[in-house]
Amino acid sequence: MLVTILSKRRPAAILAASGILAFVLFLLMSGRAHAQQAEIGAEVAFVLNTFSFLIWGALVMWMCAGFTMLESGSVRTKNASMICLKNIGLYSIAGLAYFFIGYNLMYVDVVGGFIGSFNLLYGPTSEEIALVADEGDAVALVTNNSYSTMSDWFFQMVFVATAASIVSGALAERVKMWTFFLFTLALTALIYPIVGAWTWGGGWLDDLGFQDFAGSTIVHGVGGWAALAGILVVGPRLGKFRRDGTPRPTPPSNILVVTLGVFILWFGWFGFNGGSQLALGSASDAVAMSHVLVNTNLAAAAGVMAALAVSRFILERMDLFAGLNGAIAGLVSITAGPDITEHYWAVIIGAIGGVICTAGLKLFERLQLDDVVGAVPAHLFAGIWGTLAASIVAGADLGVQVVGVLAVGAFVFTVSWLLWQVLARTLSARVPPEVERLGQDAGELGIEAYPEFVVMPEEFYEDDED
Amino acid sequence: MLVTILSKRRPAAILAASGILAFVLFLLMSGRAHAQQAEIGAEVAFVLNTFSFLIWGALVMWMCAGFTMLESGSVRTKNASMICLKNIGLYSIAGLAYFFIGYNLMYVDVVGGFIGSFNLLYGPTSEEIALVADEGDAVALVTNNSYSTMSDWFFQMVFVATAASIVSGALAERVKMWTFFLFTLALTALIYPIVGAWTWGGGWLDDLGFQDFAGSTIVHGVGGWAALAGILVVGPRLGKFRRDGTPRPTPPSNILVVTLGVFILWFGWFGFNGGSQLALGSASDAVAMSHVLVNTNLAAAAGVMAALAVSRFILERMDLFAGLNGAIAGLVSITAGPDITEHYWAVIIGAIGGVICTAGLKLFERLQLDDVVGAVPAHLFAGIWGTLAASIVAGADLGVQVVGVLAVGAFVFTVSWLLWQVLARTLSARVPPEVERLGQDAGELGIEAYPEFVVMPEEFYEDDED
Amino acid sequence: MLVTILSKRRPAAILAASGILAFVLFLLMSGRAHAQQAEIGAEVAFVLNTFSFLIWGALVMWMCAGFTMLESGSVRTKNASMICLKNIGLYSIAGLAYFFIGYNLMYVDVVGGFIGSFNLLYGPTSEEIALVADEGDAVALVTNNSYSTMSDWFFQMVFVATAASIVSGALAERVKMWTFFLFTLALTALIYPIVGAWTWGGGWLDDLGFQDFAGSTIVHGVGGWAALAGILVVGPRLGKFRRDGTPRPTPPSNILVVTLGVFILWFGWFGFNGGSQLALGSASDAVAMSHVLVNTNLAAAAGVMAALAVSRFILERMDLFAGLNGAIAGLVSITAGPDITEHYWAVIIGAIGGVICTAGLKLFERLQLDDVVGAVPAHLFAGIWGTLAASIVAGADLGVQVVGVLAVGAFVFTVSWLLWQVLARTLSARVPPEVERLGQDAGELGIEAYPEFVVMPEEFYEDDED
Repeated sequence: MLVTILSKRRPAAILAASGILAFVLFLLMSGRAHAQQAEIGAEVAFVLNTFSFLIWGALVMWMCAGFTMLESGSVRTKNASMICLKNIGLYSIAGLAYFFIGYNLMYVDVVGGFIGSFNLLYGPTSEEIALVADEGDAVALVTNNSYSTMSDWFFQMVFVATAASIVSGALAERVKMWTFFLFTLALTALIYPIVGAWTWGGGWLDDLGFQDFAGSTIVHGVGGWAALAGILVVGPRLGKFRRDGTPRPTPPSNILVVTLGVFILWFGWFGFNGGSQLALGSASDAVAMSHVLVNTNLAAAAGVMAALAVSRFILERMDLFAGLNGAIAGLVSITAGPDITEHYWAVIIGAIGGVICTAGLKLFERLQLDDVVGAVPAHLFAGIWGTLAASIVAGADLGVQVVGVLAVGAFVFTVSWLLWQVLARTLSARVPPEVERLGQDAGELGIEAYPEFVVMPEEFYEDDED
Repeated sequence: MLVTILSKRRPAAILAASGILAFVLFLLMSGRAHAQQAEIGAEVAFVLNTFSFLIWGALVMWMCAGFTMLESGSVRTKNASMICLKNIGLYSIAGLAYFFIGYNLMYVDVVGGFIGSFNLLYGPTSEEIALVADEGDAVALVTNNSYSTMSDWFFQMVFVATAASIVSGALAERVKMWTFFLFTLALTALIYPIVGAWTWGGGWLDDLGFQDFAGSTIVHGVGGWAALAGILVVGPRLGKFRRDGTPRPTPPSNILVVTLGVFILWFGWFGFNGGSQLALGSASDAVAMSHVLVNTNLAAAAGVMAALAVSRFILERMDLFAGLNGAIAGLVSITAGPDITEHYWAVIIGAIGGVICTAGLKLFERLQLDDVVGAVPAHLFAGIWGTLAASIVAGADLGVQVVGVLAVGAFVFTVSWLLWQVLARTLSARVPPEVERLGQDAGELGIEAYPEFVVMPEEFYEDDED
Repeated sequence: MLVTILSKRRPAAILAASGILAFVLFLLMSGRAHAQQAEIGAEVAFVLNTFSFLIWGALVMWMCAGFTMLESGSVRTKNASMICLKNIGLYSIAGLAYFFIGYNLMYVDVVGGFIGSFNLLYGPTSEEIALVADEGDAVALVTNNSYSTMSDWFFQMVFVATAASIVSGALAERVKMWTFFLFTLALTALIYPIVGAWTWGGGWLDDLGFQDFAGSTIVHGVGGWAALAGILVVGPRLGKFRRDGTPRPTPPSNILVVTLGVFILWFGWFGFNGGSQLALGSASDAVAMSHVLVNTNLAAAAGVMAALAVSRFILERMDLFAGLNGAIAGLVSITAGPDITEHYWAVIIGAIGGVICTAGLKLFERLQLDDVVGAVPAHLFAGIWGTLAASIVAGADLGVQVVGVLAVGAFVFTVSWLLWQVLARTLSARVPPEVERLGQDAGELGIEAYPEFVVMPEEFYEDDED
């Protein structure tokens, strides 16, 4: 019509019109180019998302060193080398088990919302292989996915190792190495991935709307329940509780190393929570990631101060170990909802986490449960609190959060308990008493953690009552 | 006019003209699209700037572990746990104090160039909240700012913690825990933020053109002056100086841990200086950040070698502790101008920093000032040198640099000195002599850093004169 | 022609044609803008490439702390401080030597494929300086190169430090400090850069097609050959081998610190191999980097488990130290081809690396070669295996790989052997026997690593035979 109308007019008008048309098109295109410019292109987003998984994932791997230091400094020197071995072993087992079994079970074709695929091999997609081999125009095909397949694998793998690390500390100083490694294999190949399939894998809990941003329940709860089952089956260290039920003090043998471990964990948690945004390819992701890191730090700081403050009342002294565990508890508490929690609520959530953990340390002593590093109070109790807190202060559905906590707890605790029982009755779960007295370092490994230092006989710091 | 002229012509000419016009527009647009393409879009820049704050900030947080290791390995074993507690406590206090008070005081509405706002709560902007909630087209609004608000907060928060860490080492082994924590609160909520308001907050020193890229004076000088005031008020450790004024040796109790601490600090300093470019959203930023990291490393390396070399003359032996402090001093020295210093000048600045620090260690012994880890020589003396050096070799105005150093020094030292005096006269600044002799670990905390190891009585390594 | 044809027609047609032309141009431009959008702009790629060098390079620098911990925990306490000094010294020397000499020799104007330029100063290009100074439109000039010059320098510098670190561990407890520092100077200024010029610098081995992604041979092989030459010239520690040739056990004095060191190295290796992709500016780079990190982790994990498993047979006990070295060996093994190896092959390559290293530990004992930390088995033997494995499983030319291994070995071993001989005959390569018995800490440095701890006399853990 415009053409018909204009065709009656004179060349000058035609030229003017065509000039205007071109100008309008120019503006449109220019505007459109601007709009495109303001947005991030698919390939840039792909690179940023992938890199976020890799660099934050590397920080999460570093948390394994944190657990190792925290645990090996907490145990008595006679078992410190064994803790080192268990930790480097569990990280290795977790990586291999998750590669060959766990990842597919958790993420690939989750059947009926409960369990994924048992494919044994995993790798980059064929499009990704073609892209790297520079075959054809594969960029578009690859960037249909918003990150590289294996960067996601890497990030998820370091998470499963975290869950396994929790168990080693709780059962330190008496659980048998091979039994522990077998349990680790089951936990990282099967138990954790099945819970993962229910949630991050898109299964039934995810369908319900369960909120657990970086794993207060899915990682720390799973590790905590598995540890609790182990504590019950394996039993306390010889002599940890006197005949009257009061605990004998077994102070950390190397406070500096414990403190270093906590700093490593705090540092690594920026990767744990920050990377769990799962993307860095937009301004929205960058804002969210900043929010997450600030909340993570605030909750940890509040956890430390709250735990120190209440330790004077609960534990009857200003307790460094409680303060250090308060940092962990604060971090675990905020992990379920660091993205949706306002900053001042993060302070409160972390502080309550620190209090819960300190009270949990006391409770465990009362119940005569022997958790060498306080792993269950710090990871399970604070994890439950954090999962519920994400509902209380940040709008997640409380009912669903409760269902999630209970379902994961029931499943992981039951399976772990059964597995520990089977291991206890077949291979035996703990070392013979003479090895335990001598220490696992000398008894099982034939080495000592600090062979040149003069170490006091254990009796030295025990009281005389018993 | 062009239209008028052309309207006299024939259709063919009209078409040709319009075609040419369209082609020219096409080229213009194409050229413009190219230009836009070559530049980084606002959202990409926003993401990169934000991520730079987050990842480098995480590395700076890790420096707290470095200070903790450096200090806890430097003190005698009887005080090593207390140093761990003080450091995790100060980092927690710093984070909370800076959140509730410090940041606003430093950056928001700096009144008359001297002090910012006392708003207690802080968080993402409403545009950022809208963006993450996916409400409306908020990307453009958010990316008007070049990074997410809280990523900047995160980066600035880890800096204030660094300043506080410097104090704990200088006053180790005798300052009372609660007194130290109260001082830390004042330092991180008020003193440091006020200096920050003058400079990075855009206040009067910034208006003068004071150059302090990452804080030779603003961070390390502030920490150093606060520590010096504390050293004067709190006084030396019992028995550190003999009656004739000569110092008794108090060698680091754990050299490995001290060395680890220095490596952590060196590593974290890449975040400290690299992140202080405050942006990563352009080629210019990337070039500058590379320049900064190279200078940081060169200055540290030169600081080590220079300190080792001169320690033979100044301290009369090849001194590892001097070499390790030389790394710190080299790092502090380059921190004022790593962006504007040529690489070979970075070598020279760092080397001189290492020499100054080593000479400062000797000077402090002569003056009978007891700085347990050499914090004042490494942070304050090298910080002053670095701030002036940014003028000498890199063009900053020497007068302004001197004014900055003096103003910051006068303010921080005076306020700190008064505060230490008040604390000393009310709560008491140092532990009772019997606690000091026993050690703060056993005396205040009721624990030991290494309870199972046999530790020599202190007299063992003292000389017999006294 | 089109214009001529159309000029015969009527204005309406002219207008229509010009409209269509404009529309087609619009579509073309629009399509082109889209295509540009999907790709990453030159400046974004420049920033990402540069940042990849910086952040991964910082992680590689952190590996120096790993070597320091691994080594200082492995030696007897009487030499632990000296190892700390040697390591911070070597990192400093490496950084300065590579700045003033090494980098140019390796990368600038490699003459005839053998050796680069002896320019002493190095820095950003004039275009980069102009860009940062905001002079003219320098972005395009700068982004012609795909990363900032000095970010590459930074990344390459941390690599040379790694090579030097390998030597210090092997020769610990007897090599003289100054001799070691002089050797380090030669290694980092000349020997390593010349090998680097042949390969990564674009020299003759690169022309042949030698595949060594991140330096199984170029870094770990060079360090290993230099260490082997030193072991032969310097000789074993006094009393390490009994008169009948059997080795005396010299267990690590601090297992926790050794374990920490291995975790640091594993963590840092993500930077070592990930950063060696040398780019992050495309989806292809991101996919490749993910692939590399996954392979790196799988190989290390397999190395641990394989070394632990075979240690029961080879070393006749479940050996933690073998397991820890297995991690290193797995990492070294995959370093030659992590980009071109399929994931399950990475598992196999790493496992074989762990076995080779464990067998190498035994072999060295048989040959009465004294390598304190097992550096040659872990770095050289596994490095050779990895370099060949890149051919066996991933298509590199086996002949070329063999040539590369032999050429680098012949050159580095010969030059190092001669240099150690010269040093031994002039300055003396090892400390006097009385210093060695007393320990280098007290004998050369006048300090002790842990002065307050009671350390057993060395005889305590020696057997009685001798």
